[in-house]
Amino acid sequence: MAVGPGTLPDFFPVAGIKLGIASAGIKAPGRKDIVVFELAPETRVAGIFTRNQFCAAPVVLSRRHLSEGAPRYLLVNTGNANAGTGERGLSDALACCDALAGRAGVSVAQVLPFSTGVIGEPLPVSKIIDALPEALAGAREDRWQEAASGIMTTDTRPKGASRQVDLGGHTVTISGISKGAGMIRPNMATMLGFIATDARLTPDVIQALASELGETSFNRITIDGDTSTNDACMLMASGQYSGPEIAADSPLLPALREALKDVYLELAHAIVRDGEGATKFVTIDVAGAATQQEALDVAYTVAHSPLVKTALFASDPNWGRILAAVGRAGIDDLDLNALEIYLGDVCLVRSGGRADDYTEERGQAVMNEEEITIAIDLKRGAIRETVWTCDFSHDYVTINAEYRS
Amino acid sequence: MAVGPGTLPDFFPVAGIKLGIASAGIKAPGRKDIVVFELAPETRVAGIFTRNQFCAAPVVLSRRHLSEGAPRYLLVNTGNANAGTGERGLSDALACCDALAGRAGVSVAQVLPFSTGVIGEPLPVSKIIDALPEALAGAREDRWQEAASGIMTTDTRPKGASRQVDLGGHTVTISGISKGAGMIRPNMATMLGFIATDARLTPDVIQALASELGETSFNRITIDGDTSTNDACMLMASGQYSGPEIAADSPLLPALREALKDVYLELAHAIVRDGEGATKFVTIDVAGAATQQEALDVAYTVAHSPLVKTALFASDPNWGRILAAVGRAGIDDLDLNALEIYLGDVCLVRSGGRADDYTEERGQAVMNEEEITIAIDLKRGAIRETVWTCDFSHDYVTINAEYRS
Repeated sequence: MAVGPGTLPDFFPVAGIKLGIASAGIKAPGRKDIVVFELAPETRVAGIFTRNQFCAAPVVLSRRHLSEGAPRYLLVNTGNANAGTGERGLSDALACCDALAGRAGVSVAQVLPFSTGVIGEPLPVSKIIDALPEALAGAREDRWQEAASGIMTTDTRPKGASRQVDLGGHTVTISGISKGAGMIRPNMATMLGFIATDARLTPDVIQALASELGETSFNRITIDGDTSTNDACMLMASGQYSGPEIAADSPLLPALREALKDVYLELAHAIVRDGEGATKFVTIDVAGAATQQEALDVAYTVAHSPLVKTALFASDPNWGRILAAVGRAGIDDLDLNALEIYLGDVCLVRSGGRADDYTEERGQAVMNEEEITIAIDLKRGAIRETVWTCDFSHDYVTINAEYRS
Repeated sequence: MAVGPGTLPDFFPVAGIKLGIASAGIKAPGRKDIVVFELAPETRVAGIFTRNQFCAAPVVLSRRHLSEGAPRYLLVNTGNANAGTGERGLSDALACCDALAGRAGVSVAQVLPFSTGVIGEPLPVSKIIDALPEALAGAREDRWQEAASGIMTTDTRPKGASRQVDLGGHTVTISGISKGAGMIRPNMATMLGFIATDARLTPDVIQALASELGETSFNRITIDGDTSTNDACMLMASGQYSGPEIAADSPLLPALREALKDVYLELAHAIVRDGEGATKFVTIDVAGAATQQEALDVAYTVAHSPLVKTALFASDPNWGRILAAVGRAGIDDLDLNALEIYLGDVCLVRSGGRADDYTEERGQAVMNEEEITIAIDLKRGAIRETVWTCDFSHDYVTINAEYRS
């Protein structure tokens, strides 16, 4: 199940970013399971990675390589996460990078590895290395659609977004793909995002954008709260558009940021819409917080509450569950009489109890929708944060209880 | 569904503690929904209450009355939680206490109210007041069994524990009842525990025992992480046994603490065993932590992980899910190569990956049991904490998605 239409956009090719696809036969013979991004020499790359302490070998290596040199290749495999594999996992990931580097004539530190799939199984290194010639030979700028499918694991559909915007008379292209459906099918974990643009960005700007936009999109979605060992979201800027380099004080930056943000959000939301067993796309909007932390604490407590999530599945306007989740979010001096909770535009809670003008009929009308917003105004300050999640259905239990790797 | 046998013990009466039961017709005609504890004048009372900021009116009032005077009555109703009811909820709870106080000839502050049931509906004050004569007239020391049933909401079975132990030649009796099955059937919330003894305790000892034993039992169980608005766990000591008053330095205290702890744990575990949809009783044991907080963070992250819980439901020894949960528990400098994770006596994770001697067969054998221990040794220090939880089944979703108050 998934929420909303699942069609891929028509991708705009991004000058300087080529994509190669291949079948290594990791999971099933013939399935496309290798995606290689080949980046023009001037391309700048920045990204964010999982905060899970048990991060996978490719995450360790990508972080290290990113700090050492100018990346020229991203090597993505599905079917095996190379996580929980200890020292061997690191040497396996390095062997794959080394093989690609040797074949492409770059240094090993210029290759960033990404893996997603089963945890705890050794990476099938020779299968991956054997598939590299096919991937490199076929690398072209117009293969985004195939790449979107090539990075899928348990996703029920490929995910992509693409935009062209005018930046002071220069056309900028942004294309991206993502995968993931929560931590999700545990051993088939991981959320991945790859976003490319032909804009030319200074190193500090691309780093700031990758952090800021990753934080407010991929790091604001949650299916079940289970952070994967392999999550990564990368931003690549080839610099091949016709405009000037964009620094932190560039007048072009705000418009570029908005366009990138649209792509990041679309890719992140696509993961929620494809959440395991999802039947609802839910926006949790917390306003009036005194600090960012308390806004996020409240938002995630509501987003992770099994009782709220099962009520959403049942289309049940069960305001008591939302109220109880807000109350246990860890804010000691909440003003219960001041805060307000809305379901869509219907006020549920005001003056410490059910709003006087609330009726089940009005709550039910909002709950019947496929896309639902729960808005909480804490009335303590000016900070606002939004997270996105889905409901908790029978299919979630079925998928996660019956799955065996 | 529930885990293990559900039979009540033969309760030992506790001298000085009488129980009255009545039907107020709050939920259904004829159902016992009022329980009154009548305490001998010298009885000392201490307790712990929910930390949910949206705590219910009876919690506010019980805390206040407990600080003001010597309680003589506990008034418990099921069917209505009197939560999310604002100022009216407080005056309603007060009206019930006042009626009982007037009829019994005590001050209103000597009555502690407890409510559990639907959130957000006005308390049926007159129904409760009308039932008080029946409850008071029938108060006896031997009605623990009926009381265990009288405080149930969505529990599938009554919960109780009872002990007699020798304390320096003096027999001490402890009896207790509990209810709850998680936050659980949201609007039918709440975990309640009432434990009585005829021991004579100084005020500081009863307060210390109520805090310490409540913390390590009722506050260490979790079904779905959703703390109720009405949780309370009360300890009553009538002082009518034949022994001396027990102060903090009494040689009798350690044995009494152990006996009380047994009762607290049995009552708390009974709630987990009756968790909504529960098919497994799971102990999460975290050792080798540097601080209590990090031990609890790891334990609760594992206990609340939907992926771990669905794997438990499926009897799936999915060590990758446990490892990933430990990794995201928020400890920044975990030594991944040092820590160890066990399922029963089978080592799952060692040296940063799957243990060399682990086999699926050995893991599966442990997972097939109805009672399972997940033990995590962080190898960082000497602190150890244990929490108890249950699995996450189809029935959990069914119960919480299909329930409408």
